[in-house]
Amino acid sequence: MTDPAAAPAAPPSAVTPNPAPEEGTAGPSKNELKRRAKEEEKAKKAAEKAAKQAEKEAQQAAADVDFAKEFYGKQPLNQSQTRTGRPRVFIHDLNPNLEGQTVLLRARVHTSRAQGNKMVFLNLRQRSDSVQALLTVEPEKVSKQMVKWAAGLQAESIVLVEGIVMKSPDLIKSASVGDIELHITKLHLVSGIDGRLPFSVDDANRPDAEIDAGEGQYNRVLLETRLNNRVVDLRTQTNQAVFRIQHGVGELFREFLTAHGFTEIHSPKLQGSATESGATVFKVNYFKGTAFLAQSPQLAKQMAIAADFERVFEIAPVFRAEDSNTHRHMTEFMGLDLEMTIEEHYHEVMEMLDNLFKAIFKGLNEKYRKEIDVVQKQFPAEEFKWKEETLRLTFRQAVDMLVEDGVDRETLDDINTENEKRLGVLVKAKYDTDYYIIDKFPMALRPFYTMPDPDDPTLSNSYDFFMRGEEILSGAQRIHDAAFLIEKMKEKGLDPDSMKYYVDAFRMGCSPHGGGGIGLERVVMLFLKLNNIRRASLFPRDPKRLEP
Amino acid sequence: MTDPAAAPAAPPSAVTPNPAPEEGTAGPSKNELKRRAKEEEKAKKAAEKAAKQAEKEAQQAAADVDFAKEFYGKQPLNQSQTRTGRPRVFIHDLNPNLEGQTVLLRARVHTSRAQGNKMVFLNLRQRSDSVQALLTVEPEKVSKQMVKWAAGLQAESIVLVEGIVMKSPDLIKSASVGDIELHITKLHLVSGIDGRLPFSVDDANRPDAEIDAGEGQYNRVLLETRLNNRVVDLRTQTNQAVFRIQHGVGELFREFLTAHGFTEIHSPKLQGSATESGATVFKVNYFKGTAFLAQSPQLAKQMAIAADFERVFEIAPVFRAEDSNTHRHMTEFMGLDLEMTIEEHYHEVMEMLDNLFKAIFKGLNEKYRKEIDVVQKQFPAEEFKWKEETLRLTFRQAVDMLVEDGVDRETLDDINTENEKRLGVLVKAKYDTDYYIIDKFPMALRPFYTMPDPDDPTLSNSYDFFMRGEEILSGAQRIHDAAFLIEKMKEKGLDPDSMKYYVDAFRMGCSPHGGGGIGLERVVMLFLKLNNIRRASLFPRDPKRLEP
Repeated sequence: MTDPAAAPAAPPSAVTPNPAPEEGTAGPSKNELKRRAKEEEKAKKAAEKAAKQAEKEAQQAAADVDFAKEFYGKQPLNQSQTRTGRPRVFIHDLNPNLEGQTVLLRARVHTSRAQGNKMVFLNLRQRSDSVQALLTVEPEKVSKQMVKWAAGLQAESIVLVEGIVMKSPDLIKSASVGDIELHITKLHLVSGIDGRLPFSVDDANRPDAEIDAGEGQYNRVLLETRLNNRVVDLRTQTNQAVFRIQHGVGELFREFLTAHGFTEIHSPKLQGSATESGATVFKVNYFKGTAFLAQSPQLAKQMAIAADFERVFEIAPVFRAEDSNTHRHMTEFMGLDLEMTIEEHYHEVMEMLDNLFKAIFKGLNEKYRKEIDVVQKQFPAEEFKWKEETLRLTFRQAVDMLVEDGVDRETLDDINTENEKRLGVLVKAKYDTDYYIIDKFPMALRPFYTMPDPDDPTLSNSYDFFMRGEEILSGAQRIHDAAFLIEKMKEKGLDPDSMKYYVDAFRMGCSPHGGGGIGLERVVMLFLKLNNIRRASLFPRDPKRLEP
Repeated sequence: MTDPAAAPAAPPSAVTPNPAPEEGTAGPSKNELKRRAKEEEKAKKAAEKAAKQAEKEAQQAAADVDFAKEFYGKQPLNQSQTRTGRPRVFIHDLNPNLEGQTVLLRARVHTSRAQGNKMVFLNLRQRSDSVQALLTVEPEKVSKQMVKWAAGLQAESIVLVEGIVMKSPDLIKSASVGDIELHITKLHLVSGIDGRLPFSVDDANRPDAEIDAGEGQYNRVLLETRLNNRVVDLRTQTNQAVFRIQHGVGELFREFLTAHGFTEIHSPKLQGSATESGATVFKVNYFKGTAFLAQSPQLAKQMAIAADFERVFEIAPVFRAEDSNTHRHMTEFMGLDLEMTIEEHYHEVMEMLDNLFKAIFKGLNEKYRKEIDVVQKQFPAEEFKWKEETLRLTFRQAVDMLVEDGVDRETLDDINTENEKRLGVLVKAKYDTDYYIIDKFPMALRPFYTMPDPDDPTLSNSYDFFMRGEEILSGAQRIHDAAFLIEKMKEKGLDPDSMKYYVDAFRMGCSPHGGGGIGLERVVMLFLKLNNIRRASLFPRDPKRLEP
């Protein structure tokens, strides 16, 4: 009900009737009477009109006093002023069983659409979830001002919404929770937008095929634009899912290895000397001297083996000062590394790694099915395929396959990226798998610490693992004998003294061992077929990008 | 049995008797006969002696052909020549139920002690486990040569041992598995020692109290010596346990947060600008430009909140270019960081962190009890104590406690390290806890992004957590409003443009949020009372140490 006390007194009429004639003056003529009657009639009508107008204005004024003003508006900056403890819900918990219940939630305004001036539809979003909310003018509950204010909320604003859960007559396709809608009772702005959004989250989430089919009706958001505005780009359903899957890969990696007796280690990234090879290492100003950023935890994890840890893994950034500007290189990426002792044969390690990968693939499909499906909407791809029994080729067999396919054998001392991909296609056609191992690489292609093959010193006890024709892991048995290691370092032109601590570790007795390093972002990129490694990195770094 | 075919022909006698006199010469005198009789007696004795000697030498020669030579010796370098798949056991799996069984295992020679030339005792070690093994001369099984060779094995050599499990008549105190001993049947060297050990693992594992009581009979291994030879130092039972516990802290941190809906993120350590404050950041040569090493994931994790991740954590190295040479500072350490949205009040975050810590303490005591006990042998400490209801003091209350204890209030604008420790003692005495929170730090002591208290702008919505009187976590509600953030940056003399991407993130709408950063090594050091943070770091880095 409107508050009568709040209604202002009726305004003075716009038209004042003529004053009554004075007593005792001469009587009016007939015409004069007629004229007067007309005037009176006119005045009466005017008065009636004025009264109506006044009434209307009074009503308007009454309405202008917003009975709903406590129900909406901008919240003061949250500085933790109060704590009511009133529970809040998540969109993904909403369902028709809650019909009629009042709930409270914080969400983004994904879209807002006014229908006339009495109704506004908001699509509310939390991460990958969304729900439709409705605000309608209703006496005592929702004022026109409230609707108008809501209609003006910018996309990506964060709001606190109180609403009643109502079953939706039809499934709302634009919402991930489509069987209910929220009838808003209160709506407050928690955080607004200051400036223009670089692109809409919907545009950023749209598959290329849909943009192409739209023939110009949609904006295509380029990767560069996305990365420059990564905070907005990361809000897409696709990206929310990508980084849940990235979390999953790390989790599955650790769970598998912990269950197999591995200890997690943390090795220093600041190194006193340029490890492995000087060419691709970043230099750091270290007080009055120089340090180098570790290009892998290789030396440290081998030293952990010499220190009797037996089986170790590490999840940590690795740094590569390579000026490579490709779809699959970054200057900083996450290495999932492991190293373990060997009892008899380096295939013990290769098999551990193989079982690890199969556990990751299986775990992703089981625990992250929903997220994989979300990503596939924007990045359609054939489902990633692997066999229970992993295909193992020797390097020689891989070369033979390529030669058979028409590649000149002379060019195959190494298998370059192009031929790697070609091999992936050949393997897929012949063996129907996206995942395989190449074993026994030529010694010439591997680092100095790689153990040569016992029968053919031109070959090595080393392997690479592949997903969809791209390398995701490189590993080997390592040399655990100091004298032999020094010999190999010298062959490669390295000074053993520059890695004295590393070489010395093997003088103090070290078990035979091997391991491998996995690129986390590559696994995510190739499992999901994202086509560019930057999409699998929260804030990617390459030779041209250090921000955000 | 000895092989007779292998015995050489008897050697010629050392003394040849005189030839018999020729026929038909003059008969000998009586004296001459006496002399001859004496000589014959002498020659007979010499011949007997020679025969004995010959017999002895024949026996010796027979023994020199070592029937056991296949049973011991140096293995060829393991280059994965063969793979028998024969199972190997761990020392911790050995027990009296295996009596009579032959087992195979790889272990270090912890100590070796010969008893005469027919017996040698080896103490075999795997990580924290050890067992006694015995090698005794036995016909056809163990030769004297084999025993001699075994007695010469250097400590820390790695051997492959085949032996029969035998119940031990008495408990062997020097072994962790003391109820059995291993009767060695085969013994091969997998990896030997090249040079001198810097110290014995036993010396490195000895408690200070025992060294003091020994009055010079034991070598004290200084921390500096340990760190210079970290690979050997890490082999002690204590260190093996310390790094299992470090693994445990990380595991419990992740398990708790994953169960509470957090996503693990990996943010770049290479930054385009000197984050937070320029003073303590390492500079990196980045192609033709400069990058900086992140001194925390602060900006990135807040940007992840602006990108709708809602709750994130990160486990990653952080870099501090501070020239601090103390027991608790390193230039690189592991940050356990988290950030989460706030619904109403920053105490939601503080309580999440508090519950996290209690879950870690409880988890360590439950899952790592054995390791904690091992560490306590070398580093005796009162058991770490905490309450189900954590003690919370405000900064003001903490200051009052110190003033009451005699500290001059004028000096307490900040609580320095010394007073921090003093407060820890006061709290322990009064509340019987090693773990507590100090809330509501003065704004002047906190970084620019800290949210001020709503009622008193000189205070802030921030907290530190303490273990045994030392800070292990610092955290706060953060400012999520761009305009307010800029104001605060300017107050602290920072240029908002230098962190443009960070500030811009909040222009695109950001939920209220807060978080904290935990120093992994500090938690391990203080939980176990190791007294120096370097002991909780695999290969520690400080202003003076970049190796190993």
